[in-house]
Formats: sequence, C-alpha cells, structure tokens
Amino acid sequence: MPVSSAEVRESMYNFARRMSLVGTSAVREILKVAGKPDVISFAGGLPAAETFPVSELARAHAELFAEEGRAAMQYSITEGWLPLREWIASRMRLKGIDADPSRVLITTGSQQGIDLVGKAFIDAGDKVLVESPSYLAALHSFSIYEASFVTVGSDEQGMNVDEVERILRKDRPKLIYTVPDFQNPCGTTLSLDRRKQLLQLAEKYRVPILEDDPYGELRYTGERVPSLAALDKSGTVIHLSTFSKTLSPGIRLGWAIASGEISHSLIVAKQSSDLHSNSISQRAVARMLQSFDYDGHVQSICALYRERCTAMLAALERYFPEGSHWTHPEGGLFIWVELPGGLNAAELLEEALARHVAFVPGAPFFAGSPRHNFMRLNFSDRPPEMIEVGIQRIGEIAKRRLGK
Amino acid sequence: MPVSSAEVRESMYNFARRMSLVGTSAVREILKVAGKPDVISFAGGLPAAETFPVSELARAHAELFAEEGRAAMQYSITEGWLPLREWIASRMRLKGIDADPSRVLITTGSQQGIDLVGKAFIDAGDKVLVESPSYLAALHSFSIYEASFVTVGSDEQGMNVDEVERILRKDRPKLIYTVPDFQNPCGTTLSLDRRKQLLQLAEKYRVPILEDDPYGELRYTGERVPSLAALDKSGTVIHLSTFSKTLSPGIRLGWAIASGEISHSLIVAKQSSDLHSNSISQRAVARMLQSFDYDGHVQSICALYRERCTAMLAALERYFPEGSHWTHPEGGLFIWVELPGGLNAAELLEEALARHVAFVPGAPFFAGSPRHNFMRLNFSDRPPEMIEVGIQRIGEIAKRRLGK
Repeated sequence: MPVSSAEVRESMYNFARRMSLVGTSAVREILKVAGKPDVISFAGGLPAAETFPVSELARAHAELFAEEGRAAMQYSITEGWLPLREWIASRMRLKGIDADPSRVLITTGSQQGIDLVGKAFIDAGDKVLVESPSYLAALHSFSIYEASFVTVGSDEQGMNVDEVERILRKDRPKLIYTVPDFQNPCGTTLSLDRRKQLLQLAEKYRVPILEDDPYGELRYTGERVPSLAALDKSGTVIHLSTFSKTLSPGIRLGWAIASGEISHSLIVAKQSSDLHSNSISQRAVARMLQSFDYDGHVQSICALYRERCTAMLAALERYFPEGSHWTHPEGGLFIWVELPGGLNAAELLEEALARHVAFVPGAPFFAGSPRHNFMRLNFSDRPPEMIEVGIQRIGEIAKRRLGK
Repeated sequence: MPVSSAEVRESMYNFARRMSLVGTSAVREILKVAGKPDVISFAGGLPAAETFPVSELARAHAELFAEEGRAAMQYSITEGWLPLREWIASRMRLKGIDADPSRVLITTGSQQGIDLVGKAFIDAGDKVLVESPSYLAALHSFSIYEASFVTVGSDEQGMNVDEVERILRKDRPKLIYTVPDFQNPCGTTLSLDRRKQLLQLAEKYRVPILEDDPYGELRYTGERVPSLAALDKSGTVIHLSTFSKTLSPGIRLGWAIASGEISHSLIVAKQSSDLHSNSISQRAVARMLQSFDYDGHVQSICALYRERCTAMLAALERYFPEGSHWTHPEGGLFIWVELPGGLNAAELLEEALARHVAFVPGAPFFAGSPRHNFMRLNFSDRPPEMIEVGIQRIGEIAKRRLGK
C-alpha cells in the first residue's frame, strides 16, 4: 500500500516536532516513516530480507517440533541452549577468541548484551567512555542506568586512542564502549595498533571494554583485524555479537562472551531481565547450523552488500555537493556523511521525506554536544538502482539549500 | 539418566553453601538439582509439558515460514506484532479490562514486564511496597534498580490492605507490586473488597500498582474476582500477564497493559532492553490463536492441575506433622507451608534432596527479615502418584527432625 504524500507530510511534521528531543524517540519516528513501502530508506540498520535462510530455518523448526517440541516449549536455563553455545564458542575460537561454552551467554539480540552490561556495571553517575559519535541505542541503554558520558573523537582509523589515557586518568570511567569493526554510525574500523594500545590502557587502568561486534562477519574489502577479545589475555574484554546481521534479526539471538566472574554477573542480570531467551529459536538455529554452510552464506551476503556499498559511494561522488565528506567502510552497514556549508541534516531530512527518501540525521549519535551537519546512510537494504535514485534526490536537495 | 546419590549429595553441599546467600543464586541451584529426571521436584514453577499445544504451534510455524518467512525474520517494532496485540486486547476486554491494542506491549515473558516497570519507575533508593512474602524474581529485579522494600503482611485473603495506608503516608513508595490471583509463593487470592480498597488508596496517594497476573486463567475452584486493572478507572494499574502458563514458557511471550503515558515509558524502556521480542513466535502464536480453542485448552489445563492440587492438599493432610499450616489455593501453581516447632526448611531440604525430593525454602521470598520455617510447593509439574510419594518423604523427614 503506497503512502499518500499527505501521510508522509503528517509524519514529517510529527517527526520535526519530536526531533527537537534529539533522541531515540525521534529516530523511532523516522524509522516508522522509513518503513513505508514506497520510501527509499537509508534510515534503518536492516539486513536485506532476501538473504534470510527461510527454508532452512523452516525445516529446522519442523524437525524441532517433531522431535523435541515439549522440551523446546518448556522453561530453560538462563545461560541458553548448550548446543548453540557450543557452536558459538567454536566459531569464536576460529576468530582467535578463547571462548568455551561456559563463558557464552545467549542474549535476546546483542542489544540485550549492551543492556545487561549496563545493568551489571553502571550505577547512577558512573562514567562510560564512548566514541563520538557512537551507537545511539547503546547511549540510550546506558543513559537509563544514569550513566554520564566521556567522549573520544574518531577518524577513518576509528577511536582516537591517543586521547584515551588522559581520560582514564582524569575521569575514571567504569566502562569503555566501542564498536571496533565497521562502527555504527561511522562505518570505520579501529586499526590493529590502536586496538593493542586501547587494550593495554584498559588493563593498566583496570577498566572493562565492551566490544560490540554485530557487523564483524560482514567485511567486503581489506584485511580482517583481530577483535579486542582475540587480543585480550587478561579478561578485560566483554565481547558481544549476534545472528541478526547474518541469519535473522527477528529471532532476537545474540551472545555475550566474558571472563568467568563477569559472565556470572551477566547471567544474574539476564535472569531478572527475561529469565532466558526464546528456546524454540535457540534450538531451531542450533539444529540448522549443524548442516548449514554458514561461511558460504556470509560470503553471499558480503557479495550483495559490497555491491550496494560501492553503489552508494559512487552515487555520493556523483550527486553530493562539493565539500561533502564521507567514510569509506570496509564492511558493515553504514556510511557517515559530513555536509558542507553548515547544512542541517534534520532540515534536509524534512525535504527528503517529502520526496520519499529517508536517512538518520547524525545529531543523536553524539553523546556530547550534537553536531547537526552529519547524516548516517544505510546501504544494505536497498538495491543499487534505488540507492542511485535516493542519493540523487538527497544530493539535489542539499545543493539547492546550499545555493540559497 | 538417573543421578547418583553422590551427585545429589554434591549438589546438596553446594546448595547448602550458597543458600547462606538467601537469594536467587541459591534458588537457581535448587532448580538445577530439581531438574534432574529422578528427582521429584516441587521446586520450580513449571507448567506440565504434556499440556503444551505442540502440533498446533508446529503447524502455525510451518504456515508462517511458507507465507511470511522473510517478514517474520526481519526486525520489527518494539510494541509487538499487531495481530497478537489485538488478540490479547480482546481477551483482556472479556475480563473487563479496558484494553485496546495500542496499550498492549508484548514483552519477553512477563518477567520482562516486571523488569521494564523497574527500569521506567525505580531510581536508586526508591521504595517499593510488596507483600511479605512476595515473588522472588520480582524482588530480585527491583533490587537491581536499587529499590528498597516496604512490606505488608498477608493472610488467606491476600495482602493485608489495612496496613497499606499507613505505609503510603509514611514511606511514600514509588510503586505497589502485587500478585492478586494465586499469589507466588502463597497461592492466595486477594479478596474483592481488598482490591477495591487497595485501588482507592493507590489513587488517593497517586502510586501506580503493578498487577502481576501470570496465573489468573488457572482457577480450579471458587468465583473469579475482577483484576485490579478491570476495576481501575484512573490509569493507576499496570497489568502484566503471559502465555507461559497456558501455551508455553519457552516462547517467552507476555504482555503489559498500561495507560497511554506509562505505556510509552515502557516501550522506550523495552527498546533499550532488547528492541523487540522474538517475531517468529509472536506471529506463530497469533496465527495459531486464530483457530485455537483457547478456552477449551485452559479448561483442560485447569482440570489437570485441579487434580494435582487436590492430591497435594490431601497428601499434606496425611503426611505432614501436626502443627503444620498451609494455604488452600483456588488456582495457580503453589501451596505455601508453615512448618511447626521451629523446623528450618533449608535444613529439611538438604535431607529431602538426598531422598530425591526438592522444593524451595521460603526464606528468599521475604523482602524483609527472612523466616526459615516456610516452604513453597509446586504441584503442576508432577502427577498425583509422585506428589503422594514426594510429600510423604518430606513429611517423614519433618517428623523425624521434630522428634529429635
């Protein structure tokens, strides 16, 4: 059902009103509008639905109900279904992380992993060190535990780790939160040298690092860099990842890997949060993975997204006004654009929505003072032709506004 | 695989050591031991797995994957799948609750509902008014938000509402938490008069009531009493319920119904907690319910549990020592027993575990000073013959200890 432009306009006004909040509520609104079928949306972080292994998961469910339906429908343990934790531990070991199943906690998406770490570690007034900009919903989650933020800038190599020691010494944060691979919103990757340096600092000042790694499997170019958890020998890193970007976000299955003591705290926090994650999906996915070519599947996703990322970078080059800057991601879902001439991304969005194109203005991703001349563009959920059209429209709007 | 008595003994010692914590960790241990197949467990709150509608849910999943697999596997909205919220709203309206789908939030089990209310309402040091004893995992959840508790005693008619006004005036709690129907752990039901009185007081002092109603559908005898939410005309009550006791706990689907403003806060809290609940289960359950005889199903569960409850009450009468007292539930899953002569339930449990019978000692259910001569017995998950054997063993142990 196509939306009328009146509908888009109404959502747009609602959006503009709420955008003044600069927060997740506003972004929720954008995503609602962006979800309408005739909107070219670069707003969400949605994987392409055509990559979902529907028939394989359907078969796993059919077998599951036939063979262990009652057990799957009963209460289960908080840690999660052991065969699934075993698969995850062995996958993580392939990536150099010293994981065993007893240290793997299944979470209701990796968003819950962030929430549990907040619950376990953050008391009112505690400081969390984050990149600026950083993942919006992590900021939101920590805010709920009344964290305050200390921010570190970033460039194409990720977090400016050189600034970190001064902050650790002065502000004594309780936690370091980072997305080292294909960061949200920037798409940038923390270099190996900076990873080593960050880990050393965290060890020296005894501050745990929350490594949020939802996108690590999605590399399109360049060399893989070991995760912080793979470099960690001291139990400093809590590593989060998820099946959301490789199998399905609707199943809400992610995982947290941490040292024994931290892992225990996370289990206690999870027990009070939701007792355990959906057992049917846990068992069905574990069954599916017994015979599923996960590597081949990830490769085919990467081929698709590589093409889309390339298309978006080319379209930006072609249509965006001179003086614009953007990141060149080696993987993940996002490109981060800095607009020239003091252009305001939220104002640009109003016009873009009227032309049925959506994105997320960058302001809410800044934990400190918001900067209004940035936008986050997602390329995974639309084919190259639509990317071309959408970027062209945004580019035209930006140029016209600059010309005024 | 039967457990060796050495294994039981080891678990028992571990348990005894941890029981000194008097908390959920200890109860986790009990439940692990109790989960072993040759233990007669009255410890958990497990529904009987033979009641789960396995084939119906299997069929719904098969149809779902065939017809809307991709959509079901994608990200969804935080509020939950609309057709499921519509079904829930109409079911709640049948029970007199003025529910419309926009006020229904799907939660990852009703445990998450408790957690979200804690997240949205409780700051460090806030007071929560609870029954004494009260549901352990709710106490745990509120504790994580650094609540302190003010307690109200209870009898066979539920919470002693007469004591409430004094507390509301003096302690100004931020929230009232109660399980009015077939309370956990007591199995008692709050009388209609007390419900009206409690609601009036909450309105007068403007304190929201969290009505936790996981068991309301499971009534075996007596007349249904309207829920607090059904009596509420002022938006004072947040009502939680779940499919865990009627369809399946493994699907982790519950719901929260609240006034518009509170509902909005819960949605924001849920977004940061896990973005949304498992979409596949939400859609599969909504599909299943289109043609499922829910009332008939609930009646058959009630018939089964009524028999088990009756068997346990009869066995208590037959085997427990003189001076024991226990509640006479009209529904739900639990009987609450007060032991005579200063018997300590945790010590009793050690001996019971050695004879392969488990229950939960009452102490951790007290938010204030723990009382050690109580035990919670679950009757839903074992057939009458096993109930008879298990209660006989506990009774023998209790009598022998009294005789010493």
